[in-house]
Amino acid sequence: MIPRKKLKGLVAATITPMTPDGKINLPVIRQYVDYLVNEQNVKNVFVNGTTGEGLSLSIQERKQLAEEWMCQGKDKLDHVIIHVGALNLPECQELARHAAAIGAGGIAVIAPFFFKPTNKDELVAFLQKVASEAPEVPFYYYHIPPLTGVKIRVEELLDGIKAQIPTFQGVKFSDTDLLDLAQCINKNETGDFEFLYGVDEQLLAALAVGANGAVGSTYNYLGRQTNLMLQAFAKPDFALAQQYQLLTGEFLNFVIKLGFGVAQTKAVMTFVSGIPMGPPRLPLVDASNEFIVKAKAKLDSIVWPNGDCS
Amino acid sequence: MIPRKKLKGLVAATITPMTPDGKINLPVIRQYVDYLVNEQNVKNVFVNGTTGEGLSLSIQERKQLAEEWMCQGKDKLDHVIIHVGALNLPECQELARHAAAIGAGGIAVIAPFFFKPTNKDELVAFLQKVASEAPEVPFYYYHIPPLTGVKIRVEELLDGIKAQIPTFQGVKFSDTDLLDLAQCINKNETGDFEFLYGVDEQLLAALAVGANGAVGSTYNYLGRQTNLMLQAFAKPDFALAQQYQLLTGEFLNFVIKLGFGVAQTKAVMTFVSGIPMGPPRLPLVDASNEFIVKAKAKLDSIVWPNGDCS
Amino acid sequence: MIPRKKLKGLVAATITPMTPDGKINLPVIRQYVDYLVNEQNVKNVFVNGTTGEGLSLSIQERKQLAEEWMCQGKDKLDHVIIHVGALNLPECQELARHAAAIGAGGIAVIAPFFFKPTNKDELVAFLQKVASEAPEVPFYYYHIPPLTGVKIRVEELLDGIKAQIPTFQGVKFSDTDLLDLAQCINKNETGDFEFLYGVDEQLLAALAVGANGAVGSTYNYLGRQTNLMLQAFAKPDFALAQQYQLLTGEFLNFVIKLGFGVAQTKAVMTFVSGIPMGPPRLPLVDASNEFIVKAKAKLDSIVWPNGDCS
Amino acid sequence: MIPRKKLKGLVAATITPMTPDGKINLPVIRQYVDYLVNEQNVKNVFVNGTTGEGLSLSIQERKQLAEEWMCQGKDKLDHVIIHVGALNLPECQELARHAAAIGAGGIAVIAPFFFKPTNKDELVAFLQKVASEAPEVPFYYYHIPPLTGVKIRVEELLDGIKAQIPTFQGVKFSDTDLLDLAQCINKNETGDFEFLYGVDEQLLAALAVGANGAVGSTYNYLGRQTNLMLQAFAKPDFALAQQYQLLTGEFLNFVIKLGFGVAQTKAVMTFVSGIPMGPPRLPLVDASNEFIVKAKAKLDSIVWPNGDCS
Repeated sequence: MIPRKKLKGLVAATITPMTPDGKINLPVIRQYVDYLVNEQNVKNVFVNGTTGEGLSLSIQERKQLAEEWMCQGKDKLDHVIIHVGALNLPECQELARHAAAIGAGGIAVIAPFFFKPTNKDELVAFLQKVASEAPEVPFYYYHIPPLTGVKIRVEELLDGIKAQIPTFQGVKFSDTDLLDLAQCINKNETGDFEFLYGVDEQLLAALAVGANGAVGSTYNYLGRQTNLMLQAFAKPDFALAQQYQLLTGEFLNFVIKLGFGVAQTKAVMTFVSGIPMGPPRLPLVDASNEFIVKAKAKLDSIVWPNGDCS
Repeated sequence: MIPRKKLKGLVAATITPMTPDGKINLPVIRQYVDYLVNEQNVKNVFVNGTTGEGLSLSIQERKQLAEEWMCQGKDKLDHVIIHVGALNLPECQELARHAAAIGAGGIAVIAPFFFKPTNKDELVAFLQKVASEAPEVPFYYYHIPPLTGVKIRVEELLDGIKAQIPTFQGVKFSDTDLLDLAQCINKNETGDFEFLYGVDEQLLAALAVGANGAVGSTYNYLGRQTNLMLQAFAKPDFALAQQYQLLTGEFLNFVIKLGFGVAQTKAVMTFVSGIPMGPPRLPLVDASNEFIVKAKAKLDSIVWPNGDCS
Repeated sequence: MIPRKKLKGLVAATITPMTPDGKINLPVIRQYVDYLVNEQNVKNVFVNGTTGEGLSLSIQERKQLAEEWMCQGKDKLDHVIIHVGALNLPECQELARHAAAIGAGGIAVIAPFFFKPTNKDELVAFLQKVASEAPEVPFYYYHIPPLTGVKIRVEELLDGIKAQIPTFQGVKFSDTDLLDLAQCINKNETGDFEFLYGVDEQLLAALAVGANGAVGSTYNYLGRQTNLMLQAFAKPDFALAQQYQLLTGEFLNFVIKLGFGVAQTKAVMTFVSGIPMGPPRLPLVDASNEFIVKAKAKLDSIVWPNGDCS
Repeated sequence: MIPRKKLKGLVAATITPMTPDGKINLPVIRQYVDYLVNEQNVKNVFVNGTTGEGLSLSIQERKQLAEEWMCQGKDKLDHVIIHVGALNLPECQELARHAAAIGAGGIAVIAPFFFKPTNKDELVAFLQKVASEAPEVPFYYYHIPPLTGVKIRVEELLDGIKAQIPTFQGVKFSDTDLLDLAQCINKNETGDFEFLYGVDEQLLAALAVGANGAVGSTYNYLGRQTNLMLQAFAKPDFALAQQYQLLTGEFLNFVIKLGFGVAQTKAVMTFVSGIPMGPPRLPLVDASNEFIVKAKAKLDSIVWPNGDCS
C-alpha cells in the first residue's frame, strides 16, 4: 500500500444531489467540492454513505457518483473515502474493486443488517471478503448500531484485525457508547488507526475521550464552525470549544424535534450553500416547507463566537 | 391482467442452493421442483425471499435464479412468486420488469428498511413505483416487521390500495399481530385479496382468524404434514389440525432453542430431502454439526398422526 | 390445598374504580360484581392486575380492594384471583399472605421488571418465594413480556415447576407468541394447568392452539359477546366464532388507533356499564372527551350476530 | 427552603448492605460512611437508588435505611440525597414526607415505568405530586431511560419547571444522549441547576459538555481516582484526565463483558473495601466466584497515574 497522508480533522458525509425527477445530478459535484473546500474548509469526504443515500442507489449510480467525486476532488480534496457497503457481498466486492480502480483514498463498509452477524468473527469474515478486493486501499469499518442493530463492540473487533484485514485503517464510529470508543483509543497505542466520530451533536465529548476526527453530515454546512471548535479544543481553549458545541447542538436539537433526517439535511444544505441538492429518493420524502422555514430561521439566529452568522 | 388461478394452500419460501464455494447452484432447481411437487405436495413457490437469501444475492444472481424457477416450474408448479424487493428503488424496478418479462405469476416487495417509510403513504409510494413496472403481474406486499422494523399496519395499507396499485393481490403476512390480520380479512369482503401467513409455527392460529394460505420455509420439508393440517382444518377436524400444529411446533420450538435461521433451514432441508442446499452466504455461516445431529434426531422422533415419520 | 372448581371461560381483569379526587372507590365494587355476573355473564375476576392499576396502588389500597372483591364476590363469583406481584419481594410476600388470609381463590405474580430475571431459574426462584407464603392458594404466573421485557419462555418454566411451586396452577399468558403457548398446552397432558390467554383481540387464535380460557379487560364490557364466541367455538360453529372475533377486533382496532390503554378502558367501562370508574391514577391521565365520543359511537355501531347492540 | 451548600463533585450511589439471609444490614452503614469519606474522599451519597436496590426494598426498609444514612452521615457527609421514587404515587409521597422529616439534603424520583408517562406534562405532573410533599427539600429528577424506557428529553422538562416544582434542583442524568445533556447545560445560564452524570464509564465526556458532577456506583470504590480525574480536568490537565478515564473504562469494559450489574457491584465493593455488602436480593443473584476472581485480578493489575494500585 502506498504511504498516504494521515486523515485528520473533518470529513463531510456527502449528500447525493438529485434532479427534480430523481436522477443523480452529477454536474453539481464540481460546485459542491469547491464549496466544501472554500466555504467550509473541509477537504475530506465520505461518499455514498447514509447521508448520501448510498443504499438507495443502484450499483451503477454509486459507481458514477464515486467517479465524479474522484474526478472533481483531484488536486482539491485530501481524502475521498468511498462507502462500498451493501446487504450482499458480491455488490460490496464489485464496488470495492471499482473504488480501487478509480484510486479511492479509502473504502468503508457498513455491517450487513438484514441477516446480521452475531459475533465478531462473522462480522470480520464479511468485512474481510470486501477489503481483500481492494488490497491497496485503506479500509474503514462503518459502525452505526442505531441503524444496523449490529452492536458488536468495536474494541473487540480490533483484536487481531490487522492479521485478517491488512488494510484496516480505522472506524467511522457512529454510536453514543463512548466507553467502547475510549477502549478503541486505548488499544490504538501505536496510533495506526483512525477513529472518526459520527454523532455530530456530541463530537466534543468524543474528542474528550480521544477521537481522531469526525465524519458527519453537518460538516457540509457547519464545517467552518466545527473546524474552529477543533482548533479551540487543540489549543486548548476548552470554554470556547464548548461554546461551539453548544451552538451546533442548539441547532440540531431544534431540528431533531421537528423531525430531522437525510431529506431534511438535503434541504438545509440547499438553503445554506445555494447548491440545489434536490429531493431525496423514496422511501424518503421531501422536507416540508414548514421545516425549511423554521430551520433556516433558527440557523440564522445563531451568533457564533467568532461573530459569524451561519 | 390475465385472469389466473387463485392461489391457495401452501407456498414454499424457497431456499437458494449454493455450491461449496458459494456460487448459486442452478442445476439443483430441477430436482428441487420435483421434490416439492412429488414429496411435499407443494405447488407454489416464493423465490428470492428471506429464506432464499434474496437480499444476499446480486441482481444478476436473483435474475438467474428467477429464470431457473420459471423454467423448471413450467407445467409443474401452479404459482411462482418472485420477490423483487431491495433497499433501492432502481434495483426493485429492474427486478420487477425482469419478473414480468419471464412471466412470473406474482411479484412481492418487502418494505425498505434502512431508511424506513414512517407512514402508509410513504410505504405505498415506494411499493407503487415497483408494482407499476410490472403492470400485468399480481403484486404482493411482504410484511415482516420483526426483520424490517416497519410496523405500518396492513389493514391501513389496504384502504384505497387498488386505486394506487391496481395489481395488488395480497400480502405475505409474517407477523404475530393477528388483530391486524383479522382486520385485513374483515376488509376483504369481496375476497379479492390473499393473505398468506408467514409465521409457520402458528399457522393454525392464523387460519382460525381467516388466513387464506401460507408462505414459509418449513413447507419445503414439512409441506406434506402441513397440507394434512390444512385438510383437517377444512373438514373440520379441529383436534387433528391441532395435533399437526403441536408436532410441527415441537420441532420448531426445539430448533429455535438451538439457534434457528436460514443457515439451519438449509441444513435441515438437505438432510430431509437429500438435495444438497450447500452453505449459506456471509454474513450467515454454516449450521454446526451438533445442530444437524440434534435437529435430525428430533425430527425423526416425531410420530405424525397419519403414522408417517418425517 | 382444598380441591376446587376448575377455572373455565372468561376472567375479567378488573378495573379499579376511583373517586374524582383519586381515592379508591370501594362502594362501587358491589355494583360492579352484580354487573359482571348479571350483564356480562362473567363469574371470575383478576384483581389488582394491569387493568386494575395494581402497581399504581399502595399495599394498603391493594389489600382493601382485594378484601372488598372477596367480600362482595362471595356467593356470586366463582373465582377471585388476586394479583400480588410487585417489584420488591417483601411486598409480594405480604400481599400473598394477605390474599391467603382472606381466602383468595388464586394469586398471580408478574415477573419483576426493574431488575429482570435473566433465566428460568432466577424467575422461578422469585416466584417460589412468593408462592410459598400462600401454600394453600393456587398460583398463577402472569406472563406479559410486552410490558415487563421478561421474555423467558413459559414452556421452559413449566419443566419441573410443580416440584418448586406445588401450588402452581397456570399462567395468564399475555403475549402473541403462540408457539410458546402451544408448547405449554403440549406439555399439559394431564390437564393440571390452566392457560388463560390475555391478548383479547386474538383470543380465537389462542383457543385454536388450545388455550383454556382468557383473562382480559374487554370482558368487563364485552364478556357476553365473548362468551357467545366461546360457545360457538365449542360447538363447533367456527364461522360464527370468527364473526364475533372480527367484530371485537373491529372495535379494538379502532380504539387502538385512537390510543388505547387503561385510562381509556376505564372510560369505556363507564359508558357501557353506567358504573362510574372514575379517573386513572398518574402517570396515567384521563381519556379525552373526543376518545369517549368516538369509541362510544363505534361500539354502538356494531351489530352482533345475535342481533345485540353493545 | 434553607440555603444550602452547592453539591459538587462525586456522589456515591450507595449499595445496600445485606446479611447472608437477605435482611438489610444497618450496622454496616457507619463503617461505610467512614470508608467513603476517608478512603474515597466522597462526601455525598444517593441512597435507595438503582445501585441500592431501592425498588427491591419495602417502604419500611427504605425508611430505615434512609434514617441510618442520615444518622451516620451527620457531620461527616455533605449531602444525603434520598431516592423516593416508586411505581405508585402514594408510596413516593410517603417516602418524600419521610425524607423531609428526617432532614434529607435532597430527594430524587425516577420516572414511573410500568405505566409510562408519554410526554413532558404527564411526567412533570407525577414528579410534582411527589415534590410537593417535601416542599423544603431540593428535588432531583432521576433520568435513566435505558432502564425505564421513558425517553422524554430532559431539556424539554426544564422549560418552566421551577413554576411547577419550586424545589427543582437538578437531574441525575444516566443516559448517553449528550446532546440532551448539553442543551440542559445551555439552558442553565443562571447556574441554578445541577446536572449530575450517571454513566460512570464516560464521565469525562459529560464533563466536556458541561456536567456539574456525577452520581454513580463506581465512586464507592473508585472515588479517589475519579476525584483525581476531576482535578486534572479542572486544572486543566486534559491528558491526565483522559488517562484516568481510560483506566476506569478498562476495568468497566472488562467486567461488563463478564456480566456486570448491581450484584457484581456488591461483590466488587466487598473485596475492595472489606466491608461485607452481602448478597443482592432476588431477582438478582450472587456474583459468581469466577467473576470475583477475575474482576479482582483486573482491578489489581491497573497502575494509576499517581502510582496507586486500586
